[in-house]
Amino acid sequence: MSKPFSFRLLKTDGDARRGELITPHGKVQTPAFMPVGTQATVKGLMPDNVRATGAEIVLGNTYHLMLRPGAERIAALGGLHKFMNWPLPILTDSGGFQVMSLSELRHIDERGVTFRSHLDGAMVALSPERAIEIQGLLGADISMQLDECLKLPASSKEIARAMKLSLRWAERSKRAFEGRVNEGYALFGIVQGGDDLLLRAESVRELTGMDFQGYAIGGLAVGEPQEVMLKIVAETAPALPAERPRYLMGVGTPHDLLEAVKRGIDMFDCVLPTRNGRHGMAFTRFGAINLANARHAHDARPLDEQSAHPAARTYSRAYLHHLTKANEILGAVLLSTINLAYYQTLMAGMRDAIAAGSLAEFHAETEAGWAKGDLPAL
Amino acid sequence: MSKPFSFRLLKTDGDARRGELITPHGKVQTPAFMPVGTQATVKGLMPDNVRATGAEIVLGNTYHLMLRPGAERIAALGGLHKFMNWPLPILTDSGGFQVMSLSELRHIDERGVTFRSHLDGAMVALSPERAIEIQGLLGADISMQLDECLKLPASSKEIARAMKLSLRWAERSKRAFEGRVNEGYALFGIVQGGDDLLLRAESVRELTGMDFQGYAIGGLAVGEPQEVMLKIVAETAPALPAERPRYLMGVGTPHDLLEAVKRGIDMFDCVLPTRNGRHGMAFTRFGAINLANARHAHDARPLDEQSAHPAARTYSRAYLHHLTKANEILGAVLLSTINLAYYQTLMAGMRDAIAAGSLAEFHAETEAGWAKGDLPAL
Repeated sequence: MSKPFSFRLLKTDGDARRGELITPHGKVQTPAFMPVGTQATVKGLMPDNVRATGAEIVLGNTYHLMLRPGAERIAALGGLHKFMNWPLPILTDSGGFQVMSLSELRHIDERGVTFRSHLDGAMVALSPERAIEIQGLLGADISMQLDECLKLPASSKEIARAMKLSLRWAERSKRAFEGRVNEGYALFGIVQGGDDLLLRAESVRELTGMDFQGYAIGGLAVGEPQEVMLKIVAETAPALPAERPRYLMGVGTPHDLLEAVKRGIDMFDCVLPTRNGRHGMAFTRFGAINLANARHAHDARPLDEQSAHPAARTYSRAYLHHLTKANEILGAVLLSTINLAYYQTLMAGMRDAIAAGSLAEFHAETEAGWAKGDLPAL
Repeated sequence: MSKPFSFRLLKTDGDARRGELITPHGKVQTPAFMPVGTQATVKGLMPDNVRATGAEIVLGNTYHLMLRPGAERIAALGGLHKFMNWPLPILTDSGGFQVMSLSELRHIDERGVTFRSHLDGAMVALSPERAIEIQGLLGADISMQLDECLKLPASSKEIARAMKLSLRWAERSKRAFEGRVNEGYALFGIVQGGDDLLLRAESVRELTGMDFQGYAIGGLAVGEPQEVMLKIVAETAPALPAERPRYLMGVGTPHDLLEAVKRGIDMFDCVLPTRNGRHGMAFTRFGAINLANARHAHDARPLDEQSAHPAARTYSRAYLHHLTKANEILGAVLLSTINLAYYQTLMAGMRDAIAAGSLAEFHAETEAGWAKGDLPAL
């Protein structure tokens, strides 16, 4: 039997938490940012390069992997860790979010969801039990329950219906997962309830009664203003059990991460650092920088001489501008790397600050750096 | 003053030669294969990854770089080595080949060539002197003369005209380059003459009379059958001075490399390993393997357990198949890496075999491996 999944809360600073996840594939220091490896690859990066950014865990997508190459195939090939050559922890989502955002024809009922594959048009069924089965076939260290994730704005009635359905699916997911808890794996329940604080509170109450290994806050960053998201996080996170990790799904910008950690979140995932990197955007301690901008064309300076990552210290802005304008793969590769490294540096900074009881100062300094903006062009 | 450019011929085996280039940015063991870094990047690969394949020199493209970001800009940024973070030797072509193959509207006369940029439609002029100036701005260790490269088949009259024009341009290139020879840089003349052995012989005679630091055979692999190319190489290479390196431009497949080394060629460049890698094709000691083929979908074996490069030993064929089918950037990155590593392994094998006087055996074994074909699927 593997070492069981656990979470150690090491230190708090206000609502912010410094902790450590222990999983079958190793430890993860929290607050943690998980790069997204949608199709069994963090886009463009070799696993060693992902590790070199400081990442200790990546996210895999049930929806994409069940359609291609298929969960049974990955299992036959030894599981997702081996398949993608990533020996560290993996969290997989349940597929619910992508079913809503990517598949055109879908039908939700009590049993689950059926949808048309965006790849070949085949009709595919996903139930809470099948989502757990798939994540087990992938070998995820942390699995997520299937939930129904609405876009906001939505009516209270609709939000309540989806939240309650997600609770019933949470129970079924937990039952389906039972044997795997003893093997050291974790299942997280997902708090739903849209932008309605009462529904969120009800979801928290019911979910925590079921006792998951961790809790996610889902259904945010789906169209609502940032202040609404942060309000929900601020009210929801402290209501979750202190001894369990808290994961804010699909979030976010560097500023979102700062604000959400302050409100008690331990884990994040987001495509922004890699997606924006593929489009010429760099995240830095000077804020976001658009390398496509002509002001970089002559600029011999690197993005950040003080970066912990060599890619941000080595390549000139002029070179990154050139690669971006020329649509060269290496531009996507370097900027994805630089962005993931910045996200990890930001998380490490928050972890150190929480440990030192100085998160407010770190927060203020970081925001001041962004507000000051980029170094003036030469 | 930098150490002057030189070539040491270390050993011969029949017409095949084992040698060493010494350039301002270091040594290159020959026979050598130069990965193509068209737009100041070997597509998709970080410079460290290119080095890790065994490459000691890369090629840069005058045509592409003069149009974007511009040779003067690269010079202002410290030269091409610094711009692309490649500290080892660089050879640049003269732009002649791309003018013929990429620009739609072009006019050639005695002075040079004017063409419409494929990027922004601007009319651009390239003369032998400007091609030398551009390559100097880039800081190339080895520059190439501007030549006129025809597609084959072409009429004898047309081939003779282009060859003679290329000779006059060779003289002008040499004059323009004079000061840089003392700084340790090299200029290669280019033998033209299409598929006409008499015209090739005339080109060799005239060029060698001018005494370049090295000689290229151009105007091949432009539509003619392989046996025609090899016949031209077999007749041309031994007529070139033994104490100068010989470079067969734009060639080729692994089989082309074997055959051309046997006929006395020292240097090669080709986009095949990276271009085909981006399209799911792997070059291996079992021959070329199309990873898009469904037979790889379930195959847990790596491409080649005995490869010197970890990428070929680590990732399963099933994973490479998946990345190829999913059109993931990492598929292009991994297969480009694997292919460049195979090309370098092949060159290293030839170098060792020439040194040991056993190139014929190495040649036969290598071809037998390709003929045997890929390992049967599991």
